[in-house]
Amino acid sequence: MERAVVLLSGGLDSATCLAWARAQGFACHTLAVDYGQRHRVELEAARRVARALGALEHREVAVDLRAFGGSALTAAIAVPKDRAASEMGRGIPATYVPARNTVLLALALAWAETLGATEIVAGMNAVDFSGYPDCRPEFVRAFESLARLATRAGAEGAELRVHAPLMQLDKAGIIRLGAALGADYSLTHSCYDPDEGGGACGRCDACVLRAQGFREAGIPDPTRYAAGVTPAGSR
Amino acid sequence: MERAVVLLSGGLDSATCLAWARAQGFACHTLAVDYGQRHRVELEAARRVARALGALEHREVAVDLRAFGGSALTAAIAVPKDRAASEMGRGIPATYVPARNTVLLALALAWAETLGATEIVAGMNAVDFSGYPDCRPEFVRAFESLARLATRAGAEGAELRVHAPLMQLDKAGIIRLGAALGADYSLTHSCYDPDEGGGACGRCDACVLRAQGFREAGIPDPTRYAAGVTPAGSR
Repeated sequence: MERAVVLLSGGLDSATCLAWARAQGFACHTLAVDYGQRHRVELEAARRVARALGALEHREVAVDLRAFGGSALTAAIAVPKDRAASEMGRGIPATYVPARNTVLLALALAWAETLGATEIVAGMNAVDFSGYPDCRPEFVRAFESLARLATRAGAEGAELRVHAPLMQLDKAGIIRLGAALGADYSLTHSCYDPDEGGGACGRCDACVLRAQGFREAGIPDPTRYAAGVTPAGSR
Repeated sequence: MERAVVLLSGGLDSATCLAWARAQGFACHTLAVDYGQRHRVELEAARRVARALGALEHREVAVDLRAFGGSALTAAIAVPKDRAASEMGRGIPATYVPARNTVLLALALAWAETLGATEIVAGMNAVDFSGYPDCRPEFVRAFESLARLATRAGAEGAELRVHAPLMQLDKAGIIRLGAALGADYSLTHSCYDPDEGGGACGRCDACVLRAQGFREAGIPDPTRYAAGVTPAGSR
């Protein structure tokens, strides 16, 4: 059985990745990276998801990307609200974290090397996040090439693989895939700007895409919204 | 003037990199990564070196690679002692930190992107560290390719460059280069296993290579050794 490190953010996409990795028959080790994000409720969601989907082991590693600033997710820049899904693909949004996926995959690679894992699974997606350079297929292939050169296992001939099973799916497609593979989305958290109890704002890009995805997939939305919030798109 | 992020460990090699980057005319921002290494005295050395060589700004970022274990530098595995330099090139030593250079360069890239820096400078070396897969020229080229795909600047056409000016130099060559460019090696720290006051052990691979380098370069060794230690090679 191949060993895999699965990056788990606590959101809907990475929960789907874990369900997919389990369905491949991989022995799954899940990794949550605390990079100083505002929405720390995500880390708790990641633990719940790992447990529910039978990860062998879940670890958290902290790296304080706030040291570099530059993103609405880690710095005091306003999270964009009330944008239509069609607006989000244009340019690189303020929620982009500099080199985030490079840092996340590097950390996954470090653990994979220690574990002797040959598979890395992550939720990069070129459809809904078309404005992020590090969500493109060519980025994933470049990281895979790097991983084979960077590690002891790769230097000794192991074929390290980086899987991005959501790459070409839209949000509805991701939700259909995960639901079919047993992901429980009520355990996940997507909102960029939750209230203190973790209730979703319903208005940031992540909330808008998520609500639209459930609608289009024809699957009931289990998201817990903040008091008084009307989910985006249902207005 | 090009802006550069220079990775600074506090050791001799990265001090030489900073002296080299300054000589290129780069505006230098130095980054020390605290990855949970035993030899925390390195972080203090990095601050001294940054100041002495006129870095515009020095930052530290913490990422706890001890979460993954697997190396004598971060876990409870004995640091090898009293090995001849000729033994060190064989296989991958116990002091290898899984995917370390991938993680360090990813963090440098994150800061570079925030700064709008197009140059990254790091001390990878294929001669003295021939057992480390992530110290080879092909690793550096693969990271450069990745960096151009991974970032907003790269996606918009910027030519990000990763410089490894020490790649083909032996330790004596590195010391000659840095000395010619004004690096003050009395400020640096190389030992993998220092005493509490930061005195060098004289016996780990880093001490052995460093002492031999000064001898071969014909430059006086300013290393401060722990009490009672006879520097390697002078016995």
